[in-house]
Amino acid sequence: MQKYLKEAKEASAVLATMRGDKKNRVLHKIADALEKNSALIIEHNRFDMQEGERNGLSSALMDRLFLDESRIASMAQAVREIAALKEPVGRVLDGWVTDNGLRIEKVSIPIGVVGIIYESRPNVTSDAAALCFKSGNVAILKGGKEAQQSNEAIAGIIQKTLEEEGLPKALISLLPDASREGVAKLIKMDEYVDLIIPRGGEALIRFVNENATVPVVKHDKGLCHTYIHEKADFDEAVKIAVNAKCQRPGVCNAMETLVVDRAIAADILPMLKRAFDAESTEIRGDDTTRKIIDVETATEEDFYTEYLANILSIRVVDGLDEAIAHIRKYGSGHSEAIVTDDHKAAERFLNEIDAACVYVNASTRFTDGGAFGFGAEVGISTNKLHARGPMGINDLTTYKYKIYGEGQIR
Amino acid sequence: MQKYLKEAKEASAVLATMRGDKKNRVLHKIADALEKNSALIIEHNRFDMQEGERNGLSSALMDRLFLDESRIASMAQAVREIAALKEPVGRVLDGWVTDNGLRIEKVSIPIGVVGIIYESRPNVTSDAAALCFKSGNVAILKGGKEAQQSNEAIAGIIQKTLEEEGLPKALISLLPDASREGVAKLIKMDEYVDLIIPRGGEALIRFVNENATVPVVKHDKGLCHTYIHEKADFDEAVKIAVNAKCQRPGVCNAMETLVVDRAIAADILPMLKRAFDAESTEIRGDDTTRKIIDVETATEEDFYTEYLANILSIRVVDGLDEAIAHIRKYGSGHSEAIVTDDHKAAERFLNEIDAACVYVNASTRFTDGGAFGFGAEVGISTNKLHARGPMGINDLTTYKYKIYGEGQIR
Repeated sequence: MQKYLKEAKEASAVLATMRGDKKNRVLHKIADALEKNSALIIEHNRFDMQEGERNGLSSALMDRLFLDESRIASMAQAVREIAALKEPVGRVLDGWVTDNGLRIEKVSIPIGVVGIIYESRPNVTSDAAALCFKSGNVAILKGGKEAQQSNEAIAGIIQKTLEEEGLPKALISLLPDASREGVAKLIKMDEYVDLIIPRGGEALIRFVNENATVPVVKHDKGLCHTYIHEKADFDEAVKIAVNAKCQRPGVCNAMETLVVDRAIAADILPMLKRAFDAESTEIRGDDTTRKIIDVETATEEDFYTEYLANILSIRVVDGLDEAIAHIRKYGSGHSEAIVTDDHKAAERFLNEIDAACVYVNASTRFTDGGAFGFGAEVGISTNKLHARGPMGINDLTTYKYKIYGEGQIR
Repeated sequence: MQKYLKEAKEASAVLATMRGDKKNRVLHKIADALEKNSALIIEHNRFDMQEGERNGLSSALMDRLFLDESRIASMAQAVREIAALKEPVGRVLDGWVTDNGLRIEKVSIPIGVVGIIYESRPNVTSDAAALCFKSGNVAILKGGKEAQQSNEAIAGIIQKTLEEEGLPKALISLLPDASREGVAKLIKMDEYVDLIIPRGGEALIRFVNENATVPVVKHDKGLCHTYIHEKADFDEAVKIAVNAKCQRPGVCNAMETLVVDRAIAADILPMLKRAFDAESTEIRGDDTTRKIIDVETATEEDFYTEYLANILSIRVVDGLDEAIAHIRKYGSGHSEAIVTDDHKAAERFLNEIDAACVYVNASTRFTDGGAFGFGAEVGISTNKLHARGPMGINDLTTYKYKIYGEGQIR
């Protein structure tokens, strides 16, 4: 492991100063090679699919695992789109001249060696590799074991392309020991690894956070709320709530709990019930809610639960303060929304809610690199530091100060 | 500990949205209270001094510990200067409108609860408290045990002022259990604490880094180099080298190793020797150096050593590539300088050296919040992420996205 990581660290120097045109040429070759070798990838993917079937993977997981010509073409296209992004390295983030004439420039640079731990979708392998490469970072990839064969095929093709271009294949590699022990070692190697990005279930993220000495940017859960304020436009509120819950319930920016002002509860809850019934959403409400509409009981535990399913809990509150207090207590700091036409309520919500993304009159589903216009997405950080919320390719850089003097001493 | 930290977390909501004028008024009252109660602080400081004498603290440490009227006036003045800094919260860092009309603003916000672990200078207690307060962060302070009485007096005065202003004293407090076990608990409380900043010896920093689940911004060692390129102006090079080593040898941005091009070694080393002799600097050189000037031997270990003393190691190299390789191997990524009049050499050094601060023709001693013009300094981060190099008050903030919609759904 140490030798492998040492090679990765050494390779990072090559990539850190590589020009954009060269990086883009290599990315296009990688995209072409993925398409040209799609038969090989599909062959390996079949092993994973058979294994998945034997192990009784759910149909959703099997679908995430599955690759065919068209999905591989999409993977290649994603790599080309990453090549087309604006060069993330060398951006001048700030600059000034000190009183004694030192010219200081704060410039974006690659982070170095980045370990990405993810689950079963094999397209993440090429996406993550391309994002790291474009941003000048060495990628150490650790995908789900369900996709091991597919990932090996994809990484093999990428590494062959790197070698054809005269580059060290250590620039993009799969973690050789993909076991939990392998991960446990990786996350302690702060001498060689500069950042770990774990994307996956709570258990994985907790394990990484508790054991890592390498800095971690988590991609954790989202327990998102939509709060319908008494001054909301009812039609808009219903549309936003249904979209936040139902458009794709299994993702981290979907709403889990709807918070409704008492003043409007009797009027709007029946409207909401009809709209959610049309989407076959299971509703669980607090006592006040259940006096107005006929739904199951939401327990204390419900309000702490990220359903990731077409289930919704509803809480009725006595106005903005109680809504903010509820979200502060149960929210995960991911995405929170208020629906209101009241200016002061909107401003208070925006300022007092501590979350990566705080919305007025829009669906929480927009918390996403694509929706934010970042082009390609590394993920959605639930860290407070380094990167928060949707992570674009620029978030795979750090900075250094370049200081230009003319003989200055202190 | 949990109850204490829970109070800190709850208090953070009060401070996060406090207006700048209110924060500044409180800071001025704190400054006034420190001066008004200087007799009380000095009384407590005498206990620490007596204890220090009994325990045989070095005279340097005793000096760092010592407080009198004038030093307390400086502490108060530093608090007032922090109050005068530009408001760090609410800066719009970026902003744009998406194609579907969402208006997105990236806005600076406080980090939340910040734990700062530092050594024996009691003025750091008021500095750190004021920096955290001004940036809207709850401060949990853990100073050196040598200064415990002084710190308690200072923190007590600050807390009394907070209470007089109707604010929770949990906003600024000393960690109640200041033992190693107390620190060990604190750094695992990621539910309540958002950032730990350890400033101090390598052992402390390693302990924190290995055991923390809270994100850490380290203030670690600086093994800084100055590289005299063959195209350097000799007089300028000697002045910069002497300043980088001798102006204040005990600090992290002082030079430890001088790297000299072989082509000029025979000419410049005798000049350097004379200049360093005048500063009573002990020089240790590699074999080539020792053939030219009469100095002790620099071993492999020397090149890994942060002397923090008036000792210098010298290495002769075969040009830029070898210089970069040497610094890459032995440097700590803090501050590195090249002295040259060659444009391409300067650019290559600036781009290829991975350090927080990379200098051309200036002393590494400028790596400092004050010298950078940040006004007050949190410290000098040796992290690669969140904050790198001199940390100003803005580095005590993170950000959130405010998204203004008009009913947008996906």
